[in-house]
Amino acid sequence: MPKSATASLDSLDLDPAFALHRGGKLEVRSTVPVRDADDLSLAYTPGVARVCTAIADSPELVNDYTWVSNVVAVVSDGTAVLGLGDIGPAAAMPVMEGKALLFKQFANVDAVPICLDCTDVDELVETVVRLAPSFGGINLEDISAPRCFEVEDRLRERLSIPVFHDDQHGTAIVVLAALRNAARLTGRSLGDLRAVVAGAGASGVAVTRILLNAGIGDIAVSDSKGMIHGGREDLNPVKRALAAETNRSGFTGSTEEALAGADVFIGLSGSTLTQEALASMAGDAIVFALSNPTPEVHPDAAREHARVVATGRSDFPNQINNVLAFPGVFRGALDVRARTITENMKVAAADALAAVVGDDVREDYVIPSPFDERVAPAVIAAVSAQARQDGVARI
Amino acid sequence: MPKSATASLDSLDLDPAFALHRGGKLEVRSTVPVRDADDLSLAYTPGVARVCTAIADSPELVNDYTWVSNVVAVVSDGTAVLGLGDIGPAAAMPVMEGKALLFKQFANVDAVPICLDCTDVDELVETVVRLAPSFGGINLEDISAPRCFEVEDRLRERLSIPVFHDDQHGTAIVVLAALRNAARLTGRSLGDLRAVVAGAGASGVAVTRILLNAGIGDIAVSDSKGMIHGGREDLNPVKRALAAETNRSGFTGSTEEALAGADVFIGLSGSTLTQEALASMAGDAIVFALSNPTPEVHPDAAREHARVVATGRSDFPNQINNVLAFPGVFRGALDVRARTITENMKVAAADALAAVVGDDVREDYVIPSPFDERVAPAVIAAVSAQARQDGVARI
Repeated sequence: MPKSATASLDSLDLDPAFALHRGGKLEVRSTVPVRDADDLSLAYTPGVARVCTAIADSPELVNDYTWVSNVVAVVSDGTAVLGLGDIGPAAAMPVMEGKALLFKQFANVDAVPICLDCTDVDELVETVVRLAPSFGGINLEDISAPRCFEVEDRLRERLSIPVFHDDQHGTAIVVLAALRNAARLTGRSLGDLRAVVAGAGASGVAVTRILLNAGIGDIAVSDSKGMIHGGREDLNPVKRALAAETNRSGFTGSTEEALAGADVFIGLSGSTLTQEALASMAGDAIVFALSNPTPEVHPDAAREHARVVATGRSDFPNQINNVLAFPGVFRGALDVRARTITENMKVAAADALAAVVGDDVREDYVIPSPFDERVAPAVIAAVSAQARQDGVARI
Repeated sequence: MPKSATASLDSLDLDPAFALHRGGKLEVRSTVPVRDADDLSLAYTPGVARVCTAIADSPELVNDYTWVSNVVAVVSDGTAVLGLGDIGPAAAMPVMEGKALLFKQFANVDAVPICLDCTDVDELVETVVRLAPSFGGINLEDISAPRCFEVEDRLRERLSIPVFHDDQHGTAIVVLAALRNAARLTGRSLGDLRAVVAGAGASGVAVTRILLNAGIGDIAVSDSKGMIHGGREDLNPVKRALAAETNRSGFTGSTEEALAGADVFIGLSGSTLTQEALASMAGDAIVFALSNPTPEVHPDAAREHARVVATGRSDFPNQINNVLAFPGVFRGALDVRARTITENMKVAAADALAAVVGDDVREDYVIPSPFDERVAPAVIAAVSAQARQDGVARI
């Protein structure tokens, strides 16, 4: 390496995040010994040929005699990475590597980061379909809306392995879990609650869908143009579908106006929530200000009006962190070789997550810590059991 | 798992190759700690965002701050797996996993097996191009001829990372190394030798090309229809190109007829070599019977007429094994971030491999053992140095 390049890296490495990332965060290792020619003759030729022949004759054996049934592709096109936007596949790689690392750490799922150099929906779908024989599951990540919805829908149709867009469903599962506990703490059920969701991107849409599925009282969603309602002419198909199921009161104004008397605010938009809007919410208000790194309202300020406050930040209570969900969801699905991840499996994961908190629920404890070791086993068991119940388990 | 399935696996596992393959041969591991929220905030959000931003600004930093520059995709479409033929992507997986394991074991290259569910040349090329941002190199494997030639050529044009079809070039490098030593042992140079190659698939074509490149005296190639010569009307473009450069004596008969008086036989076709044909070769004959698992002629029988005999088998001397080449070739290329693997780099790898044997060369020792620890360092150093000399190294 030229000296100047080294020097410039050394200066970047003064930032501990860069120092930690130097050389990457992952490696591939062998799980079998290759010490001598005898080992080689089993792990590779000629022994391996017998295993190949057996799989050619009975294709399901690929799950028993290769790593495929334990390995998930973390697939992104780099178009919606964190809050950074469309930074492309190479710049997305550190996030996908991080995701792979969390898969391993939290649920012993092997995961391979795959950043793709294409953004067209047809191309993304075809590419992942072609890759699919190498993987037991597909975790889609940081693909911008609304393309992400079509990519996921089409892959779910084409493939008989779990396909899960974590920005949607990981967030949705953890939000549902936290909201169940917040409702319980305040003596209400989900059906009693009126919620406002700011943001109709991947996570806003998925959170809204899972809450509808779980029986929320009413829910209204806003995008950058205001509340989504059936009278708007500028809605894409996904938002149009939302309009039909949400906003029963027919609010046509701003997010802030819709919050008057609402029980729940869920921020997923990077917008700002004013103190006035907060103050206009119902008693025992629940505020999930989930934009990262800057929540829609500072948690301390939110606490002045709301009884339960959650954010995406690790330095405040009630962190809504996808890592609570995706490792266990995939582990649970892979363990029973689920053909797909059903809506019920997502709700089961949320319920299991909520139950970890159990009777210890408090204003500052509606969701467990990512490092709570009870989390993954609870989610895994719930997802596997629900897969069996839904008839999508293969073993 | 249903009991019957388990019982049937238990019976397969009586074969030690199956027992070893149970659950696969690879895993992905983290190289950084994630013990608590502080670690998580560096390896993942928010710290990772600074690394992503830096790569978006200076794309070459992806090589310093992700695992990309150390990871090779082992890509196959499962159409020409070992001697088993077109068994498809799932059944090819054990071989690709084995390859990945050898990459790690012999040269600390992380490798990910990617078996693709497509066989069309355009689709293969497009898919690998889209995957390329995730990898530092592409090792093509077990793709049938003649498609493999076009796939490799087009990928080499499109990508600025090493692309290397191991069935071609890995074999070619090791054959050249062994032949150099065999020639030296018998007091001849490559230019003194007349060789006959049986087989015009991936390895036959590549072996012929590297030997032409290295200055072999004359070389003639046969396929299933007989010797390849300019008068044949049934040649694909690759064989037609070979015809123009080979078989200067214009043999039009069988492989066996061409062997009369030849110095070297290289079998890569799965055909059978008769004692009569062997006996008709020149003195100090060199026989590389490389078909697997059954050589064209048994090495003991070959030794009755030939001075140097090599096979692909580990239970006889002089094993021509690709693992002597590909790990070091990629490690050497990755270490200097080579844009491509040049013809010179392949010859340099062969020369380094031959030099490991050095003055210890004997009839039964023209190529080192795969477990000789001097091999990988020698190949790595030669390939890196040649990449710099050829102007394709980036650092």
